[in-house]
Amino acid sequence: MVVEPGSIPVALVGASGYTGAEALRLARLHPHLRLTHLCASSKAGQPLSQVLPPFTGLDTLPLKPFDADEVAEAARFVFLAVPHGTAQVITAELLARGVRVIDLSADHRFNDAELFAEVYGAHQRPESLDRTVYGIPELNRAAIAEADLVGAAGCYPTSVILAARPALAAGLVADPCEIIADCKSGVSGAGRKPSMGTHFAETSEGLHAYKTLAHRHAPEMAMALKASTGVAAGVHFVPHLVPMNRGILATVYLRLATGVTVAQAREAYSEALADEPFVHLLPEGVHPDTRHVRGTNFCHIGLFGAGDLLVVQSVIDNLTKGSSGQAIQCFNLMADLPETAGLMQTALFP
Amino acid sequence: MVVEPGSIPVALVGASGYTGAEALRLARLHPHLRLTHLCASSKAGQPLSQVLPPFTGLDTLPLKPFDADEVAEAARFVFLAVPHGTAQVITAELLARGVRVIDLSADHRFNDAELFAEVYGAHQRPESLDRTVYGIPELNRAAIAEADLVGAAGCYPTSVILAARPALAAGLVADPCEIIADCKSGVSGAGRKPSMGTHFAETSEGLHAYKTLAHRHAPEMAMALKASTGVAAGVHFVPHLVPMNRGILATVYLRLATGVTVAQAREAYSEALADEPFVHLLPEGVHPDTRHVRGTNFCHIGLFGAGDLLVVQSVIDNLTKGSSGQAIQCFNLMADLPETAGLMQTALFP
Amino acid sequence: MVVEPGSIPVALVGASGYTGAEALRLARLHPHLRLTHLCASSKAGQPLSQVLPPFTGLDTLPLKPFDADEVAEAARFVFLAVPHGTAQVITAELLARGVRVIDLSADHRFNDAELFAEVYGAHQRPESLDRTVYGIPELNRAAIAEADLVGAAGCYPTSVILAARPALAAGLVADPCEIIADCKSGVSGAGRKPSMGTHFAETSEGLHAYKTLAHRHAPEMAMALKASTGVAAGVHFVPHLVPMNRGILATVYLRLATGVTVAQAREAYSEALADEPFVHLLPEGVHPDTRHVRGTNFCHIGLFGAGDLLVVQSVIDNLTKGSSGQAIQCFNLMADLPETAGLMQTALFP
Amino acid sequence: MVVEPGSIPVALVGASGYTGAEALRLARLHPHLRLTHLCASSKAGQPLSQVLPPFTGLDTLPLKPFDADEVAEAARFVFLAVPHGTAQVITAELLARGVRVIDLSADHRFNDAELFAEVYGAHQRPESLDRTVYGIPELNRAAIAEADLVGAAGCYPTSVILAARPALAAGLVADPCEIIADCKSGVSGAGRKPSMGTHFAETSEGLHAYKTLAHRHAPEMAMALKASTGVAAGVHFVPHLVPMNRGILATVYLRLATGVTVAQAREAYSEALADEPFVHLLPEGVHPDTRHVRGTNFCHIGLFGAGDLLVVQSVIDNLTKGSSGQAIQCFNLMADLPETAGLMQTALFP
Repeated sequence: MVVEPGSIPVALVGASGYTGAEALRLARLHPHLRLTHLCASSKAGQPLSQVLPPFTGLDTLPLKPFDADEVAEAARFVFLAVPHGTAQVITAELLARGVRVIDLSADHRFNDAELFAEVYGAHQRPESLDRTVYGIPELNRAAIAEADLVGAAGCYPTSVILAARPALAAGLVADPCEIIADCKSGVSGAGRKPSMGTHFAETSEGLHAYKTLAHRHAPEMAMALKASTGVAAGVHFVPHLVPMNRGILATVYLRLATGVTVAQAREAYSEALADEPFVHLLPEGVHPDTRHVRGTNFCHIGLFGAGDLLVVQSVIDNLTKGSSGQAIQCFNLMADLPETAGLMQTALFP
Repeated sequence: MVVEPGSIPVALVGASGYTGAEALRLARLHPHLRLTHLCASSKAGQPLSQVLPPFTGLDTLPLKPFDADEVAEAARFVFLAVPHGTAQVITAELLARGVRVIDLSADHRFNDAELFAEVYGAHQRPESLDRTVYGIPELNRAAIAEADLVGAAGCYPTSVILAARPALAAGLVADPCEIIADCKSGVSGAGRKPSMGTHFAETSEGLHAYKTLAHRHAPEMAMALKASTGVAAGVHFVPHLVPMNRGILATVYLRLATGVTVAQAREAYSEALADEPFVHLLPEGVHPDTRHVRGTNFCHIGLFGAGDLLVVQSVIDNLTKGSSGQAIQCFNLMADLPETAGLMQTALFP
Repeated sequence: MVVEPGSIPVALVGASGYTGAEALRLARLHPHLRLTHLCASSKAGQPLSQVLPPFTGLDTLPLKPFDADEVAEAARFVFLAVPHGTAQVITAELLARGVRVIDLSADHRFNDAELFAEVYGAHQRPESLDRTVYGIPELNRAAIAEADLVGAAGCYPTSVILAARPALAAGLVADPCEIIADCKSGVSGAGRKPSMGTHFAETSEGLHAYKTLAHRHAPEMAMALKASTGVAAGVHFVPHLVPMNRGILATVYLRLATGVTVAQAREAYSEALADEPFVHLLPEGVHPDTRHVRGTNFCHIGLFGAGDLLVVQSVIDNLTKGSSGQAIQCFNLMADLPETAGLMQTALFP
Repeated sequence: MVVEPGSIPVALVGASGYTGAEALRLARLHPHLRLTHLCASSKAGQPLSQVLPPFTGLDTLPLKPFDADEVAEAARFVFLAVPHGTAQVITAELLARGVRVIDLSADHRFNDAELFAEVYGAHQRPESLDRTVYGIPELNRAAIAEADLVGAAGCYPTSVILAARPALAAGLVADPCEIIADCKSGVSGAGRKPSMGTHFAETSEGLHAYKTLAHRHAPEMAMALKASTGVAAGVHFVPHLVPMNRGILATVYLRLATGVTVAQAREAYSEALADEPFVHLLPEGVHPDTRHVRGTNFCHIGLFGAGDLLVVQSVIDNLTKGSSGQAIQCFNLMADLPETAGLMQTALFP
């Protein structure tokens, strides 16, 4: 609940964009977390309610420019919701001061500086990549708990990895390098900066794919699937933009290995997800809907198949389980709290 | 927070519609409330997650048929989210068993059985109307705190009353019987039963008014404004249906009494709302947006004027401050809890 | 039909924005109009289908920079869909070369240079204002037919004027300076340039007013109502932004003069609109819906009332009857064609 | 254009649903078509404008019950937009009277009664299936031109067949029985009858698949691909429901045969589509968008690939090229008119 602030001091750097706003919303629902700083360089000095009107009338911290020393003095953890690139420098500054960082940007999702450079260009602080841990708790809880730096996973990768991993991990997939991931995302994934691609009149009432087979999230999917299953995997990734605000639906197409049945695949998913607090396998015949996880950290998975074709559908909220919710889930592990702390609220429905 | 159930036993009757679903969502966020029963006659026996998919994977109560004795044995309070008419009978049964009732339907918003009959037809248990208290805490906290039966206000009336009342109460309005309320609502206000009026293909991408000057909420507005200000008021009410899910924007047109300025009106609103935890007057020049209160119990008010015309704009979420959130706010008062308990979460943004 | 180009040579200047695109769409449906030039300075040289993808695969003219001599040599009429300001200069150039101009911008809607300056700042070619004719054919067909320069009316003014004028013209309104116009518009009215105010994630799923009592279209409404009825009128104008692409709904509140009944008002509207090809009074009890006129030049009007309050609701498509369709309607008059030529298609439904 | 009715007498049976309404809209734009009857059994006697408000104020025919003799006496062609099942009987009645029928329902898309029975249940007039011609002009113009009965193709099949056929016909596909078609449709495809699946509040702001690998359109795709290319094909079909009104985007995944490059595939598409008036291959790197073909008979195709994976994206309007527009395109062929007559209007944009 919101009344009493928690005891663990945490700063939020980059409070004025969508992932920052979502982190702030969730932080206020968290029982053990106490915000020490809200940093937003470009909006510093403005009332929070002017930058984020949903916070009108609420007692909150002022928006300040980021100062590593000041933040490090007060906070033990930092949620970093700044743009790609900026996060590289700030992260290094914070780590050097003993602050543990959960980076929501794309800057710390690879351990391999070369691979990073191929996808995003040269990293400014490549030494950070040696210590970063990939942030999907369902893959690597123990490593996250111990980490000083977590690179929270991208929204598309989270949806695809949660869908494909149980099949890969169980060795059910005939050709793991030929996974097809047809993903559909709401528009908030494009961030808060206006552009023609997010202009209402050319985004509503229509639908299109973009960056077909050329999106930067594909290498992240391959890397994390291999790291977490031991199976070399490749994903043909086609993202689509849907006229809604939040949500990703990943429709993942896999070929089952010879002799593997759809029923066996269901069994494997059921076992793999049995103890997951946030990832739920839906009953046979039930299709997941992004609407049912909106604003939550949940992932619903639907499983279908015929012959050797397995179709796995997963839904998440791109800003919650796909970003800020997942960041808090990582924080819970890092702070030795219950993994679900502050994250069990259900979707706004309808 | 969601982890520990609270101590006050409460039942929810009518869990399968939208106000029921919203009450359930909010109840899970409440620190002091413990759900004893989920009743949903038409869906009894079905898994909750089948009726309300956002609750997939969560430990929850079974959906049961309503039984007054069983409910009364376990619960001290009941949230009643059943259709108009049904609520009349159930309320009487519960009151007779000593259970305190917050009715979200339209059945207990008038004390006057004759007025009720004019608007909705004859009441089946008119004696309940003698004890019911109108449920907008900003109007009548003390009465709600003592009540055994609260008729939570309608969504449109809440939006209009919160907008108009400060001006009326301060005696600023020239002709209180000529208030114009041009209201715009999301489609969820029409409930969960499919109809042509809520069919996606004829509701999206368009806008229309309905029941112009003939909607049943107008008498409720007049009644509550008079009861809470002493001023006989009348509202010309024109509701519109907007292609969005949640939210009401009320644009209220008032004539200022001779000599009263817009600046004085702003002063009066500022004073009237100074201590309200949920109702906030926005700074000069700022327009309220339904998006900024979505899923919350907040009401934002914008004030504009020129000459003797005052334009007050208020926004609420029709299912939260306009229904289930307000019901919980009333419950907090009735149970002697902090009025804001479980209700301070901010809007999903964007 | 589209197969044979018509015989009247017409140029479109400003083809890359929304009113230009709409004019181009309608021009292709027109039986008597032949496009000679498509000018779009900022996009000159680009394939039309790149700038306006709906024209993919269609034989069309190249996008060129505007050249007054070149245009004047080929075209007898020009549709001007360039930004406010730019239109002032181009119009003067074209008029000087004997080309008749229909200006879709706000630059030629007033005859009074002083009034223009108050609203929009000083006009660069004020002499044009002496000859311009206000472009709503329902007000002034004869003057439009003779004009060399028509300033096609704004989208909001069209919706409000068509709604209020019959009552004013018939002398039914008690206080013509106190008309309230609560208007709701789709987002395309804001044009094609991206901004926070048109960003999908902050425009969808929400609703707000803007420029309350301070929008520049209010003086245009007053001017045109007075000019076309002889009654000095004033409009309190509150525009709202609705999460849809196209359409304006104007809800207009008028006080009837003493003794005038709602039935008499309906009679007056019925008579005033009897011969209008595009403006239709709906039967008693029927509400107009923007969806039903989308993409068309039609205006539907609903009439409601109680006591001395008259509520008139009108719907138009902001880009068609509110801009480019109306421009073609004016052109038809200027070119001595049937007023409905090329404009009788019905709305996309659903 | 709309002014003069054409010379070919045509009746529309089933005018009150969405495909009927779309056929009526398009018929009014057609230069050679003259409507003789509008039949709508359930709405007979009601004003057209009450059933289809966009036709308010337009001179149109009355809605009548269907009478085969009466229709056959006046009309040479009938567009049949009645529900599946009903069309079987009416078609037989009309054919027996020498009227040529274009059936928009699913009732006459197969020549094989056994296959029909497997998919839809036993046909009531199986003898009609011997004479029916599948209605996608791009596949079989000559046969359509000669036909007395055309079964206009389904919306999903049209989108998938137009996308996949050039590759199959050119022999470029490695395993034609393993085509994956991930399709996304607007909600209007579900028809005009309200249901939970089309209820605004549970359809907007969310996204889900349905009938994964189990939709009745998959056999139609296989049948028509084989019939038009000679290659036995199979489609794994997963439809999704998108929160928009109109449009289908098919994302089709094909494996190229050994040695075939993506560039060769582009060449093959370019050749195959070179003379098509409605189907256009977009330039390299350009993604098709349903918004750009809304309300039109056009299909835009985007081609992408890497290694041996070919991703073909096609967009159509489900009610136009996916139904009523295609029906008129078939009619044009049957009536020996230019194939594009009445169909070259461009999309409403934005």
